[in-house]
Amino acid sequence: MNLNELVNRNKEYTKHGNVANYIPELSKANPNCLGVAVAKCGESVIAAGDSNIKFTIQSISKPLILIMALLDYGEEIVFSKVGKEPTGDSFNSIRRLETINEFTKPYNPMINAGAIAISSLIKGKSNNEKIERILNFIRKLSNNNDIKINMDVYLSEKRTGNKNRAMAYFLKDIGILEGDVEEILDLYFMHCSIEADIIDLANIARVLACAGKDPLTNEVIIPRRIVQIVNTLMTTCGMYDESGEFAVNVGLPSKSGVGGGIMTVVPGKMGIAVYAPALDKKGNSVAGVKLLEDISNEYNLSIY
Amino acid sequence: MNLNELVNRNKEYTKHGNVANYIPELSKANPNCLGVAVAKCGESVIAAGDSNIKFTIQSISKPLILIMALLDYGEEIVFSKVGKEPTGDSFNSIRRLETINEFTKPYNPMINAGAIAISSLIKGKSNNEKIERILNFIRKLSNNNDIKINMDVYLSEKRTGNKNRAMAYFLKDIGILEGDVEEILDLYFMHCSIEADIIDLANIARVLACAGKDPLTNEVIIPRRIVQIVNTLMTTCGMYDESGEFAVNVGLPSKSGVGGGIMTVVPGKMGIAVYAPALDKKGNSVAGVKLLEDISNEYNLSIY
Amino acid sequence: MNLNELVNRNKEYTKHGNVANYIPELSKANPNCLGVAVAKCGESVIAAGDSNIKFTIQSISKPLILIMALLDYGEEIVFSKVGKEPTGDSFNSIRRLETINEFTKPYNPMINAGAIAISSLIKGKSNNEKIERILNFIRKLSNNNDIKINMDVYLSEKRTGNKNRAMAYFLKDIGILEGDVEEILDLYFMHCSIEADIIDLANIARVLACAGKDPLTNEVIIPRRIVQIVNTLMTTCGMYDESGEFAVNVGLPSKSGVGGGIMTVVPGKMGIAVYAPALDKKGNSVAGVKLLEDISNEYNLSIY
Amino acid sequence: MNLNELVNRNKEYTKHGNVANYIPELSKANPNCLGVAVAKCGESVIAAGDSNIKFTIQSISKPLILIMALLDYGEEIVFSKVGKEPTGDSFNSIRRLETINEFTKPYNPMINAGAIAISSLIKGKSNNEKIERILNFIRKLSNNNDIKINMDVYLSEKRTGNKNRAMAYFLKDIGILEGDVEEILDLYFMHCSIEADIIDLANIARVLACAGKDPLTNEVIIPRRIVQIVNTLMTTCGMYDESGEFAVNVGLPSKSGVGGGIMTVVPGKMGIAVYAPALDKKGNSVAGVKLLEDISNEYNLSIY
Repeated sequence: MNLNELVNRNKEYTKHGNVANYIPELSKANPNCLGVAVAKCGESVIAAGDSNIKFTIQSISKPLILIMALLDYGEEIVFSKVGKEPTGDSFNSIRRLETINEFTKPYNPMINAGAIAISSLIKGKSNNEKIERILNFIRKLSNNNDIKINMDVYLSEKRTGNKNRAMAYFLKDIGILEGDVEEILDLYFMHCSIEADIIDLANIARVLACAGKDPLTNEVIIPRRIVQIVNTLMTTCGMYDESGEFAVNVGLPSKSGVGGGIMTVVPGKMGIAVYAPALDKKGNSVAGVKLLEDISNEYNLSIY
Repeated sequence: MNLNELVNRNKEYTKHGNVANYIPELSKANPNCLGVAVAKCGESVIAAGDSNIKFTIQSISKPLILIMALLDYGEEIVFSKVGKEPTGDSFNSIRRLETINEFTKPYNPMINAGAIAISSLIKGKSNNEKIERILNFIRKLSNNNDIKINMDVYLSEKRTGNKNRAMAYFLKDIGILEGDVEEILDLYFMHCSIEADIIDLANIARVLACAGKDPLTNEVIIPRRIVQIVNTLMTTCGMYDESGEFAVNVGLPSKSGVGGGIMTVVPGKMGIAVYAPALDKKGNSVAGVKLLEDISNEYNLSIY
Repeated sequence: MNLNELVNRNKEYTKHGNVANYIPELSKANPNCLGVAVAKCGESVIAAGDSNIKFTIQSISKPLILIMALLDYGEEIVFSKVGKEPTGDSFNSIRRLETINEFTKPYNPMINAGAIAISSLIKGKSNNEKIERILNFIRKLSNNNDIKINMDVYLSEKRTGNKNRAMAYFLKDIGILEGDVEEILDLYFMHCSIEADIIDLANIARVLACAGKDPLTNEVIIPRRIVQIVNTLMTTCGMYDESGEFAVNVGLPSKSGVGGGIMTVVPGKMGIAVYAPALDKKGNSVAGVKLLEDISNEYNLSIY
Repeated sequence: MNLNELVNRNKEYTKHGNVANYIPELSKANPNCLGVAVAKCGESVIAAGDSNIKFTIQSISKPLILIMALLDYGEEIVFSKVGKEPTGDSFNSIRRLETINEFTKPYNPMINAGAIAISSLIKGKSNNEKIERILNFIRKLSNNNDIKINMDVYLSEKRTGNKNRAMAYFLKDIGILEGDVEEILDLYFMHCSIEADIIDLANIARVLACAGKDPLTNEVIIPRRIVQIVNTLMTTCGMYDESGEFAVNVGLPSKSGVGGGIMTVVPGKMGIAVYAPALDKKGNSVAGVKLLEDISNEYNLSIY
């Protein structure tokens, strides 16, 4: 089956799940949409279904700012602030921060607490400079200079993000965050509100698939070690507390966002992105996950 | 033995434990102090040891604002915001807020999360009016018009209180707090920073011991039902996660504060207050607890 | 109002809640029953409602074997095996045993894990001798030589008690239990299955109310210190994770059992027992609690 | 570098960590040992270091009995008893079993609770028949007919395995286990005590690497779907609560055992096994993990 057929076959799953509503702006999305884009190493991007809809990348920003923090500060400092272990808990759970163990830090950079910690490790003299650096990095990875923030979503998140605020103050209290908490949160809300379409995300995923290289110039944008770290963490922690199930059924490093997107890396082969905004209880796109299962099986892509 | 002898016998325990230092201003207290005041129903207050030192009441404000909230809003509304159950966890623990159960609210008003919720239930048009009402209520209970806030401690708490801030934003997120979070926190930090001595606290405890009546005028300041609620919650939850041990060994409704004070009610008989700022790991005054054990045993005061 | 009127007024509450069914034998109880017995110090027992129904005491055995363990081994050894703190968790919760803290032991002797630990501290060469000692102690306290075990309930508990078995093996693993686990469990299931009526339990409670003395001979059966310990722990932990609510509304040391009984101590005054087998979700008798609230309010009995 | 050089370079790490001692028999292992075996698809096994030492496979039996259960009962029944999610908790943690969520079952088959559940799904009329089937399956996978149980270790585990016993009775209580608990535990202790060397384990891993096929006959021993499930679960959960860190640094499906072995799959390429019995705090072989990191980096084997 080709991509169009696979999209059609999974269209029915868009009826399941619900569009995110805890961030009011997100509830305006059309739950009937389903689209996929595939960017093979060395080929043009192809797409099927609703491929030109813009949505906010939300948690898909987490692996991207992790890459920047690793480039800015190096592995040792970054992993003194967050761990590398999956948690089994939901993405916005706070309780594990209170667990006494050998370290007291967020378990990994793919949950909210970890991504807030990572947000404090982006270099820049001001939040303006930091978000501009993030946007430019994503523009380069996606080969799209028009990438920008959706201001309505950003303001909606900032207004209602009290659970993230709770986490950030907790992290401040246990010494994980340096700098002003509200400023770090502001940067976090901004990069979650970056807008893209699946073509953009497939392009970004392709860089991670092709050993960190720009597909046109072959320039190394992301060093091999960082590619490996990020692909690994997307595999073990990228789909929230559904990462294990997803790994069994799809078997590819992926990161979902509550905006409805999923960015998927097929190491050595291609980048994939899907979009379908109705989410399951864990926060993952229902139809998006189903479509990725079909794609993985049809083209035999699982890394296991 | 009389009070002086009991103070002397327990003086050695002031060498154990440590003065609170997570609020920087509190670390300036003199760990060698030990004092006790006793206010019997219908008699003058008597005191022994260091009885004229002023200290911030900290968590001892929790039962007092609970009384005000019960007077302002009634039992039903107050206990829709907090429970009545001890937790077994430390006073600033956040994890239980995340537990899914029949209610999702702080377990009781004697832990920080509960007291922050209660702080949102004090009537007043502004924080100024609210804190003035709290101060006036405490002035009346203590029969001391000079009760006021220690501004250095207040500012110190406000600056460093990020764990409380985390809890407050969490409570906002789960719908427990109405109104502005920072304003509610500000009121919380202010009433924790109210300054008193053990004479004042013994006077307040006497009102709770004598069925809520003003010892001079016999006016009912606190209705019987509210006295019973507050005395009960001080018994089951007043000494943090040491309440059970304390109940076995002292057997009296009590509330401690990390400033080093403990306010104790002997129902039907008297109010007691002790002061000794070096704390054990749970946050209770080491020598203060020991002295109360001796007093309870010597005069056979346990309610059990 | 007199006792009969109070029973009649609370009769309607027998329609709420459910008879325990996780121990199959218990599900045979008649949910319409409600009875109360009062044993004042120095007076004859009086009763109202269904006062002659025999039921298994279940968790009401917990304070009784605690007394025996304190008599057999002393305070220090007993409280090296269990703590004195309420937990906020349900009576058969296991997770807190895994919590890393200054001690690793059951939080108190009124939850199952704690009572299993206490069961290992009853002296005797064999289980036969141990249960005979327990029975004789309860016969003496209740002034009823016919107290015995309900064998059907005992065998039913033994067959289905896998959660208690899980706890016991966990306690063995962390070094709390000495001796054979199955034998300790067997003793635990036996003393839970001891049968009594509310007259018996009111008699037992009277001993705890009257400073540990036999009401006829004035002989000290339980030393004052042990009376105080047990009354305190019944107050803070005796009604499972509803102890706080119960303390506010009734304000008396009490222990409930899933058989439907509640034993209540009014220090210095009287023993009370109620029976109504339909339980709320926490495991306490619905109508029994309501009746105790009325009795406490009507006769102004709260200790606070 | 070749295998011998890599073994020599990592020899120093055998000085770190400790041989397991909670199972008394395991404490007799020689902590200085280090060995590795590599079985490429279509080639002879090669080995370096201490390659002929027999040790018990312990948790490495978990993926193997999972395969058998999937063959015996199919995916649906197996995953009605265990989940597929990593937990972030240690391998013998019990608390998550008590968590109320959409399912109440062990989070995955690579932790003890999950493997005990899986042990109940091995077909056979008696434990003798079941363990004989397990042994025969492992003999076939390892191409070694001499595989057998170490009776001393088995009896040692059976005698001291009270935490596993606690878990099994808990699982019985929540309805996960059918059949006799002690019998299921007995089978669990037996398959944990199966003895092998790294040549055997490399042979087994090769079958998982080569799409489930017997390397000699090309017969499909394990269907592709089951290979994918098992390789995935070894990746996300196979190294206990160090799986995330290991995935970043080695990036290969692996399962460790407290006997000191690690079995590693390089999908499409080869099976690897290492042995070094001194363990880190999480229960993984210190030198074994280090050696695998070197091998993965030297030969560029990470799947990410």
